[in-house]
This record gives sequence, structure tokens and C-alpha cells, in this order.
Amino acid sequence: MSCKLQQVGFLGFDVFGTVVDWRSGVARAAAPFLERYDIELDPFAFANAWRALYQPSMEQVRSGARPWARLDILQRENLERLLASHGVAVDDIPEQDLADLTRAWDRLDPWPDAVAGLARLKRRFAIAPISNGHIAGMLQLARFGGLPWDAILGAEISHTYKPQPATYLASLEAAGFAPGQAAMVAAHNGDLRAARALGMHTVFVLRPHEYGPDQDTDLRADEDWDVAAESLAELADILGCA
Amino acid sequence: MSCKLQQVGFLGFDVFGTVVDWRSGVARAAAPFLERYDIELDPFAFANAWRALYQPSMEQVRSGARPWARLDILQRENLERLLASHGVAVDDIPEQDLADLTRAWDRLDPWPDAVAGLARLKRRFAIAPISNGHIAGMLQLARFGGLPWDAILGAEISHTYKPQPATYLASLEAAGFAPGQAAMVAAHNGDLRAARALGMHTVFVLRPHEYGPDQDTDLRADEDWDVAAESLAELADILGCA
Repeated sequence: MSCKLQQVGFLGFDVFGTVVDWRSGVARAAAPFLERYDIELDPFAFANAWRALYQPSMEQVRSGARPWARLDILQRENLERLLASHGVAVDDIPEQDLADLTRAWDRLDPWPDAVAGLARLKRRFAIAPISNGHIAGMLQLARFGGLPWDAILGAEISHTYKPQPATYLASLEAAGFAPGQAAMVAAHNGDLRAARALGMHTVFVLRPHEYGPDQDTDLRADEDWDVAAESLAELADILGCA
Repeated sequence: MSCKLQQVGFLGFDVFGTVVDWRSGVARAAAPFLERYDIELDPFAFANAWRALYQPSMEQVRSGARPWARLDILQRENLERLLASHGVAVDDIPEQDLADLTRAWDRLDPWPDAVAGLARLKRRFAIAPISNGHIAGMLQLARFGGLPWDAILGAEISHTYKPQPATYLASLEAAGFAPGQAAMVAAHNGDLRAARALGMHTVFVLRPHEYGPDQDTDLRADEDWDVAAESLAELADILGCA
């Protein structure tokens, strides 16, 4: 049997988009909120618009323009910004409703192949998120969807956001693996580029509908990543995980 | 059915002694080492002597006499100190043998009730170590013994050692639970005293042979802890976890 990634003992996972389907989950939570407050926006468009504020808000932290802030703080700010840009008087909305909607990011369904795939991969590899999500959010996602992580690593370990090198390196240091003993698993070529530059192995997982039917990014592996798969189940097959 | 700890959603666990049997595991790893280097010490006595250096070494960090150092660093230093105190020329021992023996702390058997008990508790509560162990060590222990943690928290999150308040509080903050929504589970009354002082609920688990047949500490609950149990299986029964 071929055995790929033979030197690898640890798989670090991108989570939003790679393991869980944030778009459907956020749209599901947003639908009753949009109706209650008479906001004429399609819930899926709302989810994409909220997500579109994600990178710019992290960029403020990456650039040093603002100090470290956890992702739940950024998501809440982005929600208020998004609502305001659609003419909603945010101050008139009860705190509890804004907090509940922000927690949509903690209650996202795994992609259909994810839980079984992770369980198989876990037999051979230590597995953990190297996500920009915060620890509490990753913990809630794991419990909501049954994600069998060995540990939760990522941005909150380093107080930096991917693709900053420290996010990967501090996570690996905490897990006890050198970059050459680890692989990054992501549906995003940019994530893998950053990981490869640090000496990590790379696994691309195709998620062509992360952003919906009209997605035009990350529709294929842009580089010769060490492994490419169309699901975590296929990845477990490729890596010889029973 | 009675339902204890109704406000609690998170259980933080002491690990060394409460979840895993460090004494047997360290003795098992030490036995061939002691034989190879002709050190006339009973492996169990060796394990206890190594463990006896644990609190004093952490106290150096707690007091500020030295900066933060992970537990694997302290355990390695303590090993060298212990060997030297028995007249062993540590410099003559190959690095690999010292490193391997130090990793005994990553390969400890769970107490017989622990894995099944944790799996049942996990159905109702989020579960994670709040241990003085480092993340990589806790990760290896989890994989070695099959401990189904939701996340790994503890000393490395706060860069402080229990019973310093920050170890508990930073772990809870990372997990997203207030002290009143969390319980500390430990076989050590001192650990529970510190947790209670911060507003956490408290669960005592009796481990009368952690230190061997002659143990004379923590043989009973010293205070009226919220729950006391003789195993994690009994704890799951008490907490109504199917």
C-alpha cells in the first residue's frame, strides 16, 4: 500500500469552509433575524456579506493597526457594520439577539464527509484545528457537530491571524511537532502557501460550494500540494487510514 | 432524577493522578533504564521521587524566581537532579535515553474507569484538562490512552501553574465559561480549594493509590465539595449521564 505523508504525525485543519459549511449555518440562523427586523436581504447573501468582512477585520490585527482581538469580537463588530450598511438601527436591536446571531458561527454543520473522515484520520494522525477561530468557538463547533479533535490550536494560541507565520508555528510548537512532521489541511490555496513556506506538508480539500453556487475562488489546487482530495473521506482513503 | 451541577456546562480536569496513573507508567518506563545504568532503586520509588520534585520545580515559576517554563522542561531538569542525587553521572547518559525517559509522562495509562467515564460525561458536559501539564504532553496522553477531550487547556494557556488563579481563569476564559458554569474535577483537595475560591463548582474523585499503597494524602474530601465520587464512572452516574 502506498503511504503518503510518511513523516507526518499531525494534521492541522482550517475549519471554516474546510470542515464546516459556514454559509448554510449562518443563513439558517440569519433567516428568522432578518424577518423579525424586516431586513430585505436573502439569508445566503447575508451570510456571504458577513463573511466578506472577515478578512478585512483580521487584517487590522495582522497589520498592527489594532491589538489582538478574538474572532467572536470581530464577527460581532462585523455584524453591526453589516446591519448599519443596510440602514438598520443597530442600537434598537436587543443585545441578546445580536449575541445569539453572532453565535451562529459556533453552530455550523460539518460537511457531510467531515466527521467520519476526521475519525478515520485520527487513527493515524493527531488532529487539531489551526483556524482563525477562537478556542471557545472551536469548542462549541466541535460539540455541535461532533468533531473529534485531539486539541484546539490556532489563532488564539499565538494572538496572530493566518496567514501570519506565528499562527502555524505557535500551534505546532504547542502540539509538539516540527513543521516537517505536520501537514496543513485546507480548502484555501493561500492557507497552504503560507504553511508550505514554513516547511509544513500541504493537503488541499476541494470545497467548490463554500461560497455558494457561484464560487469563483479555490476551485482547484493552484500548486502541486502534497495531496489533493475532494473530501475528508477521500483524504483518509489516500492516506491509507482504515 | 436528581440532576447535580445543573448550571454547569464545562468540567475541567486535573489529569496526573485524577485521570491517569502516573506512578505505574513512570515506573514501567524507568525499570529498563534503571537496570541499564545499574541504578539500585525500585522503579516505583523512583517514580515517587521524581514526582516529589514536581511541586518545588513549579514553585520556582509561581514565585517568579524563574520565568515560565513548560512542564516537560521541568520534568527533564528534575530527572537530571534526581539521577545526580543518586550519584549517577548524568553527562554520561545519551541524550536520547534521557529524552525517552522524560516522555514517560506522555505515556501513562488512564485509571481503569477513566475513558468510559469521560465518554459518558462528555455527552452532557464540555470536558478539558485544566492540568499543569503542557499541551503537547496532554495531547500525547490523550492519544496514548484514548482520552476524549473536547479541548486542551491548563497551565500553558496562562503561563502559570495551579493553584495560581490565572491557570483556572484563563482556561475558563478560553473555553467560554464563567467560573459558576464550570466545575473542577480533581483527586487533590488543594486543587479544589483553589477552584472554589474562584467560584467554580468542585468535584472530588478519590484516588487512594495515586502515590502507592502507603499514600497518606487526599484519602478523603477535606471540605464539602459539591460532588465526591470514587471513580469517573460513579461521577457519571451521580451526574445522570447515560
